[in-house]
Amino acid sequence: MADEVPPPAHQVPAVSISSDGISSSTVQKARFSDRVRIRSILGRPDGGAGLAGQKVRISGWVKTGREQGKGAFAFLEVNDGSCPANLQVMVDASVSDLTKLVATGTCVTVDGCLKIPPEGKGTKQKVELSVVEVIDVGTVDTATYPIPKTKLTLERLREFPHLRSRTNSISAIARIRHALAIATHTFFDEEGFLYIQTPIITTSDCEGAGEMFQVTTLISHTEKLERDLIENPPPTEADVEAARLIVKARGEAVAQLKSAKASKETITASVAELNEAKASLSRTEERSRLKPGLPKLDGKIDYTQDFFGRQAFLTVSGQLQVETYACGLSDVYTFGPTFRAENSHTSRHLAEFWMVEPELAFADLEDDMNCAEAYVRYMCKWLLEKRYDDMELMAKNFDKGCIDRLKLVASTPFGRLTYTKAIELLEEAVGKGKEFVNPVEWGIDLASEHERYLTEVVFQKPLIVYNYPKGIKAFYMRLNDDGKTVAAMDVLVPKVGELIGGSQREERIDVIMERIEEMGLPVEPYEWYLDLRRYGTAKHSGFGLGFERMVLFATGMDNIRDVIPFPRYPGRADL
Amino acid sequence: MADEVPPPAHQVPAVSISSDGISSSTVQKARFSDRVRIRSILGRPDGGAGLAGQKVRISGWVKTGREQGKGAFAFLEVNDGSCPANLQVMVDASVSDLTKLVATGTCVTVDGCLKIPPEGKGTKQKVELSVVEVIDVGTVDTATYPIPKTKLTLERLREFPHLRSRTNSISAIARIRHALAIATHTFFDEEGFLYIQTPIITTSDCEGAGEMFQVTTLISHTEKLERDLIENPPPTEADVEAARLIVKARGEAVAQLKSAKASKETITASVAELNEAKASLSRTEERSRLKPGLPKLDGKIDYTQDFFGRQAFLTVSGQLQVETYACGLSDVYTFGPTFRAENSHTSRHLAEFWMVEPELAFADLEDDMNCAEAYVRYMCKWLLEKRYDDMELMAKNFDKGCIDRLKLVASTPFGRLTYTKAIELLEEAVGKGKEFVNPVEWGIDLASEHERYLTEVVFQKPLIVYNYPKGIKAFYMRLNDDGKTVAAMDVLVPKVGELIGGSQREERIDVIMERIEEMGLPVEPYEWYLDLRRYGTAKHSGFGLGFERMVLFATGMDNIRDVIPFPRYPGRADL
Repeated sequence: MADEVPPPAHQVPAVSISSDGISSSTVQKARFSDRVRIRSILGRPDGGAGLAGQKVRISGWVKTGREQGKGAFAFLEVNDGSCPANLQVMVDASVSDLTKLVATGTCVTVDGCLKIPPEGKGTKQKVELSVVEVIDVGTVDTATYPIPKTKLTLERLREFPHLRSRTNSISAIARIRHALAIATHTFFDEEGFLYIQTPIITTSDCEGAGEMFQVTTLISHTEKLERDLIENPPPTEADVEAARLIVKARGEAVAQLKSAKASKETITASVAELNEAKASLSRTEERSRLKPGLPKLDGKIDYTQDFFGRQAFLTVSGQLQVETYACGLSDVYTFGPTFRAENSHTSRHLAEFWMVEPELAFADLEDDMNCAEAYVRYMCKWLLEKRYDDMELMAKNFDKGCIDRLKLVASTPFGRLTYTKAIELLEEAVGKGKEFVNPVEWGIDLASEHERYLTEVVFQKPLIVYNYPKGIKAFYMRLNDDGKTVAAMDVLVPKVGELIGGSQREERIDVIMERIEEMGLPVEPYEWYLDLRRYGTAKHSGFGLGFERMVLFATGMDNIRDVIPFPRYPGRADL
Repeated sequence: MADEVPPPAHQVPAVSISSDGISSSTVQKARFSDRVRIRSILGRPDGGAGLAGQKVRISGWVKTGREQGKGAFAFLEVNDGSCPANLQVMVDASVSDLTKLVATGTCVTVDGCLKIPPEGKGTKQKVELSVVEVIDVGTVDTATYPIPKTKLTLERLREFPHLRSRTNSISAIARIRHALAIATHTFFDEEGFLYIQTPIITTSDCEGAGEMFQVTTLISHTEKLERDLIENPPPTEADVEAARLIVKARGEAVAQLKSAKASKETITASVAELNEAKASLSRTEERSRLKPGLPKLDGKIDYTQDFFGRQAFLTVSGQLQVETYACGLSDVYTFGPTFRAENSHTSRHLAEFWMVEPELAFADLEDDMNCAEAYVRYMCKWLLEKRYDDMELMAKNFDKGCIDRLKLVASTPFGRLTYTKAIELLEEAVGKGKEFVNPVEWGIDLASEHERYLTEVVFQKPLIVYNYPKGIKAFYMRLNDDGKTVAAMDVLVPKVGELIGGSQREERIDVIMERIEEMGLPVEPYEWYLDLRRYGTAKHSGFGLGFERMVLFATGMDNIRDVIPFPRYPGRADL
């Protein structure tokens, strides 16, 4: 009855009329391709059954393929990365050379018709594709393809960072990681926070230069100079002396001509020769001073010759810089890569990792805790809503409890207790016979075993521990009225322990100056940071979440190298 | 009639009943603070007038303040960064010491009552705040505050990267930049693309190492060694010789004892002394080999001693790496920082800048152009919808035409023409007397003046130029059937010229190998990239958008250093 309104181009179905003559539900084509994503078929509530009869083009990589009926036809399990499920694709030998299609890793684009599989075939698929035409094939040499049908260990897969995204596990993790990133931006945007891109290259070595990577062009300049010095050896002391003697001789010649009252032209010509000799001496002296090795001044490397005119590093945190934006734009966050040049070979450390660091003006520690809790729970809900199929794959293949863990966190208010109370609980446990490697007493930094005991055993849910001893925390955390603790907080979760660390920042200029002095830090590098307290200081708070830790928590994976596309650690930076 | 459902905690109004007894529109509190954002008041369609009578707490920084009525009261213009508009705040002298409040840059938190300003006051504000109590003040020493009430030039503001976000211009740019970033993630998420975080530290120096920053721990290790060598000078040749003589003497002693058939104990003791001397010699020799300077092997720097065991750089593009994910997950994008160690001092270059790089599997050049156009237009629409107030500020202060430009791009299909056609049009223009600095002929790389002439003068709208001569484009771009051009495309927009560069990628292993050879590139570093073509190769395309260029285009700013929070360029990396 209603006028036919043409759908937007990318939603035009291949077939829009089903057998009963009523406009059926249509399959949505990918907008910037002529194919339909497999998710658009299998991701429907009906598993795609309602699309039976429709003609579609799909593309993807063959997971497994087998010829059947003595080569009369082949079944391919095709995956295009849009969802964990494969589409079952049936190709008749009359349509295509089947031997080219069945190898694992083959890329195919095919046109076909969606059909309900015959009953009793034992397949879980609600729909399969019967191929009408093979449009394109990217073949695979099975003899050399490094990602065969048989499962490789995660460790072995790390040898092939350029191909491992084709596996079920790494692709599911990539989709979960994507969902967490989008959830992050959506949460903060909805809450009125502004995304501030803090610098990657920094000259503030606020956390001690030892563990920072240096960013430089000095080495390449030095290498260039050294090559040049080999090709054109610098002048020797004798060369310099010879040039000096020429200057001396020409100087004397000029003097003689002058005392002999020679003609003006003669003197001018002689002076010109002298000047030329002087210039040549100067060039010779300059080149004679060129030395192999990094440029030095007073025995130290001369960083004025480096790209930024000073020593520069890769950032270890955007917090201090993003605070400058909080003190003007109120609520901000940064989400970017951070770096540690730590010689750590554990399953929890990377040299390059991503951090989410919100900073809230006019917020105290409680506001900060509220924000951290809301953010983590938002991400868990988001995953359960948007990537349940991928979570099911993780639960099946890696960590049975990962979906329950997400549900628990999404639905349960976090426990909150002071550091002092946490120590009491740990001491009680020790009293009852619990053994820890690290001794428990007020003033210690909680070890991972303590954190996991509290969250996994005592509370069995996420926890926020707050008000830590000032001695174990950074200078910028706000001193509490007791003079002993600072307004710091850590969010602890089952499986990974510390997920978030944050604090209310010290906004009082006199107190923060005292703290800097107390901790033996130099004041000068922090002058710009102190300016935020000198001019219109504001109560503010913030926290940092290690993004890979969140992915570990969500997926239940054990090794951080498997939850980032291209892991960097000592000795390894592939691609 | 309906049951009262309590609003979520963060939406509880300070006052929910207006004078007429009917539940009025309520003011929304910031969720993680006890204040109300100024945007929540002034950003309403009624400018906040409908909130008159409500009691609110606001926080922010004083833009301008003035005492009036001989010190009886003060007017403050307060801004909290949530929107460009200031809230007018009236404080009576009976409420607070006014002298502490009026200085520009002062931070205030106040409770007050929203009121309709008296008519005829000449104010444009629909509502103002009458203060009941001053809760908190962060004072300013006006004598030293670097961001006074008087306008500083953008250049001067760059001297204060930690404070410049408090100015109207820089804060509006930050909000626009935020909106563009969120629009980017929303667009690609909606279209089914996955956000892949490609590595920042890379060992693929695909675009020539000359312009890359090196990432290293070698220099700090060298500096440590050199300090150590000064404190503990290495053994001299004489020290080594002395140690050698001791070994020799002890060896002779052992031989003598043996030939003299000394007791077993005596010989054992003598052998022990010999071994000790040998160990000492070995230590001495080892230390004597320690040299100041970077570690060398065969005259070259020994990168096996660097953190990653090889030379590492900051990425110049995530494209090649993100392609590995496209060839498994289909549609992906990366959005991250990229780096060039170029000694460029122009208003268009940064050493650190952000790039958006989508990569589409099963997509050809036309799909790629469709995606680029849809993305740019989506961002423009987004800005017009979400940040019109900030755009008005930019139009007023910097670039009258910026809103019209956004509207044009949002509403007009982009022109599309081949490179060959573009050259014809430029030659025509030259024939008619148009003068270019760079001569026009088929085969040249289009210069900025050519690009801007085409988009600004000839077409007066965004343009996509495609099918460029292969000689001026990268090896990975797909060779067209003419053998002369490649399937590359550039999006040109008024004001900035080239905004996007992209291409269909060469998926044919034999063709790409030929291209690599033709261009004289080494094959080995690209083996992993070639694997994507060897195993299940897929048609795919992608492009890169310089994010700061997009901010320049949107805001109408002229200098790229003003559209990134912490600009890095030769000689400058503040904070």
